[in-house]
Amino acid sequence: MIVRLVHGTTEETVRDLQESLEREGLRVLRSRERSRPILALAGKMPKGLVESLTSRPDVEDVTKPMGELLLVARSMRERPSVVDVGSVKVGGGTVVVIAGPCSVEGREHVLSVARQVRDAGAHLLRGGAFKPRTSPYQFQGFGVEGLRQLKDAGEATSLPVVSEIMDAADLPAFLEHDIDCLQVGARNMQNFSLLKAIARAGKPVLLKRGLAATVEEWLHAAEYLAEGGCERILLCERGIRTYEKATRNTLDLTVLPLMREWTHLPLLVDPAHAAGIARIIPPLSRAAIAAGADGVAVEVHENPAEARSDGPQALLPAELVHLVAESRVMAAATGRSLHAPSRG
Amino acid sequence: MIVRLVHGTTEETVRDLQESLEREGLRVLRSRERSRPILALAGKMPKGLVESLTSRPDVEDVTKPMGELLLVARSMRERPSVVDVGSVKVGGGTVVVIAGPCSVEGREHVLSVARQVRDAGAHLLRGGAFKPRTSPYQFQGFGVEGLRQLKDAGEATSLPVVSEIMDAADLPAFLEHDIDCLQVGARNMQNFSLLKAIARAGKPVLLKRGLAATVEEWLHAAEYLAEGGCERILLCERGIRTYEKATRNTLDLTVLPLMREWTHLPLLVDPAHAAGIARIIPPLSRAAIAAGADGVAVEVHENPAEARSDGPQALLPAELVHLVAESRVMAAATGRSLHAPSRG
Amino acid sequence: MIVRLVHGTTEETVRDLQESLEREGLRVLRSRERSRPILALAGKMPKGLVESLTSRPDVEDVTKPMGELLLVARSMRERPSVVDVGSVKVGGGTVVVIAGPCSVEGREHVLSVARQVRDAGAHLLRGGAFKPRTSPYQFQGFGVEGLRQLKDAGEATSLPVVSEIMDAADLPAFLEHDIDCLQVGARNMQNFSLLKAIARAGKPVLLKRGLAATVEEWLHAAEYLAEGGCERILLCERGIRTYEKATRNTLDLTVLPLMREWTHLPLLVDPAHAAGIARIIPPLSRAAIAAGADGVAVEVHENPAEARSDGPQALLPAELVHLVAESRVMAAATGRSLHAPSRG
Amino acid sequence: MIVRLVHGTTEETVRDLQESLEREGLRVLRSRERSRPILALAGKMPKGLVESLTSRPDVEDVTKPMGELLLVARSMRERPSVVDVGSVKVGGGTVVVIAGPCSVEGREHVLSVARQVRDAGAHLLRGGAFKPRTSPYQFQGFGVEGLRQLKDAGEATSLPVVSEIMDAADLPAFLEHDIDCLQVGARNMQNFSLLKAIARAGKPVLLKRGLAATVEEWLHAAEYLAEGGCERILLCERGIRTYEKATRNTLDLTVLPLMREWTHLPLLVDPAHAAGIARIIPPLSRAAIAAGADGVAVEVHENPAEARSDGPQALLPAELVHLVAESRVMAAATGRSLHAPSRG
Repeated sequence: MIVRLVHGTTEETVRDLQESLEREGLRVLRSRERSRPILALAGKMPKGLVESLTSRPDVEDVTKPMGELLLVARSMRERPSVVDVGSVKVGGGTVVVIAGPCSVEGREHVLSVARQVRDAGAHLLRGGAFKPRTSPYQFQGFGVEGLRQLKDAGEATSLPVVSEIMDAADLPAFLEHDIDCLQVGARNMQNFSLLKAIARAGKPVLLKRGLAATVEEWLHAAEYLAEGGCERILLCERGIRTYEKATRNTLDLTVLPLMREWTHLPLLVDPAHAAGIARIIPPLSRAAIAAGADGVAVEVHENPAEARSDGPQALLPAELVHLVAESRVMAAATGRSLHAPSRG
Repeated sequence: MIVRLVHGTTEETVRDLQESLEREGLRVLRSRERSRPILALAGKMPKGLVESLTSRPDVEDVTKPMGELLLVARSMRERPSVVDVGSVKVGGGTVVVIAGPCSVEGREHVLSVARQVRDAGAHLLRGGAFKPRTSPYQFQGFGVEGLRQLKDAGEATSLPVVSEIMDAADLPAFLEHDIDCLQVGARNMQNFSLLKAIARAGKPVLLKRGLAATVEEWLHAAEYLAEGGCERILLCERGIRTYEKATRNTLDLTVLPLMREWTHLPLLVDPAHAAGIARIIPPLSRAAIAAGADGVAVEVHENPAEARSDGPQALLPAELVHLVAESRVMAAATGRSLHAPSRG
Repeated sequence: MIVRLVHGTTEETVRDLQESLEREGLRVLRSRERSRPILALAGKMPKGLVESLTSRPDVEDVTKPMGELLLVARSMRERPSVVDVGSVKVGGGTVVVIAGPCSVEGREHVLSVARQVRDAGAHLLRGGAFKPRTSPYQFQGFGVEGLRQLKDAGEATSLPVVSEIMDAADLPAFLEHDIDCLQVGARNMQNFSLLKAIARAGKPVLLKRGLAATVEEWLHAAEYLAEGGCERILLCERGIRTYEKATRNTLDLTVLPLMREWTHLPLLVDPAHAAGIARIIPPLSRAAIAAGADGVAVEVHENPAEARSDGPQALLPAELVHLVAESRVMAAATGRSLHAPSRG
Repeated sequence: MIVRLVHGTTEETVRDLQESLEREGLRVLRSRERSRPILALAGKMPKGLVESLTSRPDVEDVTKPMGELLLVARSMRERPSVVDVGSVKVGGGTVVVIAGPCSVEGREHVLSVARQVRDAGAHLLRGGAFKPRTSPYQFQGFGVEGLRQLKDAGEATSLPVVSEIMDAADLPAFLEHDIDCLQVGARNMQNFSLLKAIARAGKPVLLKRGLAATVEEWLHAAEYLAEGGCERILLCERGIRTYEKATRNTLDLTVLPLMREWTHLPLLVDPAHAAGIARIIPPLSRAAIAAGADGVAVEVHENPAEARSDGPQALLPAELVHLVAESRVMAAATGRSLHAPSRG
């Protein structure tokens, strides 16, 4: 249950209420909302409590979020949240483009791609240093060295960087290299140990939807992050597994508008992993923004045929320029605007 | 295999080639393309035939379409086809909106909805007279009387009408009431007897994707129509069945751009059956058009709570006005335009 | 709602009750159960009616079946129903094996297969004369001539025959050739016009589960048959469409025990269409019987590599002998027995 | 590629061959097979190598396993492998039953259940100390204390114990309490960091199939374990996510016989997580064994309604007795036998 208090409720009143609720055996969580106090209650609600809360003059309303959501539930904020990733603000009426190589493949390579990503007008640089691969005999990424190269490329272009973390044991390396946003991949969406470990790191986390996760499971995975202390969470739809094999996955834009009702978190879309085919990424990016996404994440490579991973779904730099232009048009067509370019 | 001849090839040459191919045991189908002769070959290709055809000076190229597609294959036409439904042209750079009640519920009711559909700027009037319902104890539609009421409402508003046909035995009634477009519903997509029967009727057919049909099956169902003589076919994506139950179905926009490569047929999207929830239809309509759809089909009801079927996914007339306006914006944002309004 | 009256309730009492319920606006259906009267009520239940029925001394109980099921609901019978197909009784503690070629491919061919099917100990002969094929350019079956050949082979071996009907217009031919059981294929499971048409034919109907039909949809399709007058219905699970492509479909044995609670109809399993690979059919047949199926349906061909359709999933006659033997073992292991062999 | 050498090939010859292959840039893995040397080659095969290997007189054959499988591929062993878990041998012609509470709920509770599990004739005791739960506000298990209680109960009953590990950081606790088999749950099937970490622990690992993992992904996850040094791996099918919601998941027995061709690892089935409903577990267990499973894993609770997790799918102790008896019958019906009971 989420209890919104009226504007102007004093901190003392809030504390009294919180204590009385805790005496009822409930765990009470506070919203980060500044305009008014909002409390979320975890645990078994005593009988009659909702009614008694609702009848208080200092309570605006009491609502039941989807499932057991609390901290990420829509009603914990007055409006959808805006998440700072370095200098970039995700959510809140602008559209961002995240781009970069699937894998960091070397210092020169990632720097070159980073410059093209920045010149194309994208806002965040992505690149994998630790790669989850189906087979142990496939390229597993350059590890810590990849993180260093990615961050250097990001600094050279003034682009905040995003990279996937697969193991809590790697967290110190991510922090040492000041990776701006930790990505949790689809396969680890319900790796609750990982979620708990990185929640405490003080970094933004981009949480991809699991291969066949329900929206309910996905949002509760985000709740694990929030409950663990993570204050900046981004969600990223990347296609779900269906019977249809014409494309790698099926992009689930259908739930996007519903998610707006269930959570205040920004919603990104990765059309590349859904499609698996570079040439259909542009129309899918347009569709994602038209459906309301706060941004799209794509992969770029100067020579997709030689990419160490996921080449078939990598855009050429020139195609990224076009995609950013189209994203600007789509943002405008839905009453928003493209995020300002990097100052690099 | 599809054999495109060079521009200017004489009819005599085409006939000679056709006869020689038929002597090889092949069935030869002619494209309706006017700018140049194109032949499609059905049957087992004799060894070496492709090479010998390719080497002919009057053959531009020989291509292998997806699966066993021929008449609906993209390479059978120079450009995507435009389908006339009454006075409305579907495909070819404009975007259409199809709207109307899920079920025709009475003379006054459908006429009132039709007027609002026309006033909102939609182009085709839809309405069900024969309703496929999961249970035999649910409302099954008003049958022939419903067709009459729908057509009358269409005439009063100068809107061509679309209605679902479930049984070949009802075809005479559809023809008698001059229903402008026959809809084949998701459950009948592979009802090959029905497809064969209506293919000969000389009417446009709107073929919905099956509940869990692959794109390959869907396009081959369209090929049944084309092979049976139907020259005007519209395809309509309506969401596929997946594990995700937050929405009724999952709209598969991911394959839309691929379908453009496989077929010349116009592609429509019905976001209502995918969503199952009226309030998320507008963003899904925007996404569909952004992904390249030639139009969207939605349901409208003045009092959704009292609709005889599918009330939860029906738009109010005022919401339709808004959806048409957004469709215009999306058409423009993708370099197209909304189809001109009905002249009614 | 289903109302079971106490044993010995007079016919007069039943009629009085029926009339009074009809006056309440309900449609009243009678069970074919002989040991006691059972009534099923279709329509909107007036308030308080369940309570007043329950309180009557001549009412044993009032139960709510799954969904809108009535005639096929489990509670309409004292025990699971036994369906006569020619001389074969399906259900009720015996296990049957249905076998035959996917397509009838000629008089000699089907007769030869029929003899091997009978000699192997199978009970019903299946064979397709009308074949639903994905593409219009694939072999569509020999039609009426195929029905004749199948029936002749069945008579020569004293095996009742089962064949798929795709079009109500073909029903006279099925009746003229006295096909013992009409099969409705997966693609037509919700072809309600076909269901209504064949329900009146007085023949047993084998209803396959749709490609991606829920159990609820499947049972309601059976209800269409029952409501239309069909008194002998067999259900046949044949694998559902999932993301897993290692096999053609995924056999859904999980719902089999639940279906026993929801319907009194016999439950068959076709492991061949699920597997798509002949060599894994025997273990799947064992599993189906172990899960409680009343029988299995398989395809047999003397030379699978040359079959006109579905060769990869056809068993050799010798493999059928083995499968029947294993079915006998599995029937015994689950407290049942294999049906007695044909008397031919 | 997997290279089987002829029986009697000397160790010296094997080493020479191995060195020459490594000079070609290949990684060479040795099978644990004792009857003859078998080598698996990882990496890009030089052109002509397969032919030259095949032509050697000391090479029996060279085969290509499914995907990139090597160590777990069927051809790495002469016959399916038998895995020792404590005193229990899984695979190789016997059938085992794994049972225990979903969660360890206290010292007395787990000891009581363990005694009933042993008395029922089951072979391994399962119980969760670390529970992966969708929501952070649900019971997360008793952690290390749960491991201790589980192991004590196992020792008191002479039953080896199985428990789920979610975090590599917990591995020391699992080793300290001598948990006999580490379970990797569905959500962590592709948590490659966890797989790599526990592979080195020298313990048997039970790897559950992911929620919507393909068989190919699942087997490659097992290959991660094997490549990391794990010599005792058990696979456990637990139902896949499909559109059908009548049951919690859909048990995929269809692929079981195919997996026998692809891997030598023992195959278990957990019918409880597929079904989600206790009363349908017995027929599904029978089906699993009939399809060839080497054992089944179920949950038992003395008072399911009060279980801390998954109560609806827990069997009563008396039901477990019945299930073990049926497993014995099914093992016999498929030419195998139930594993001997614990000596406790």
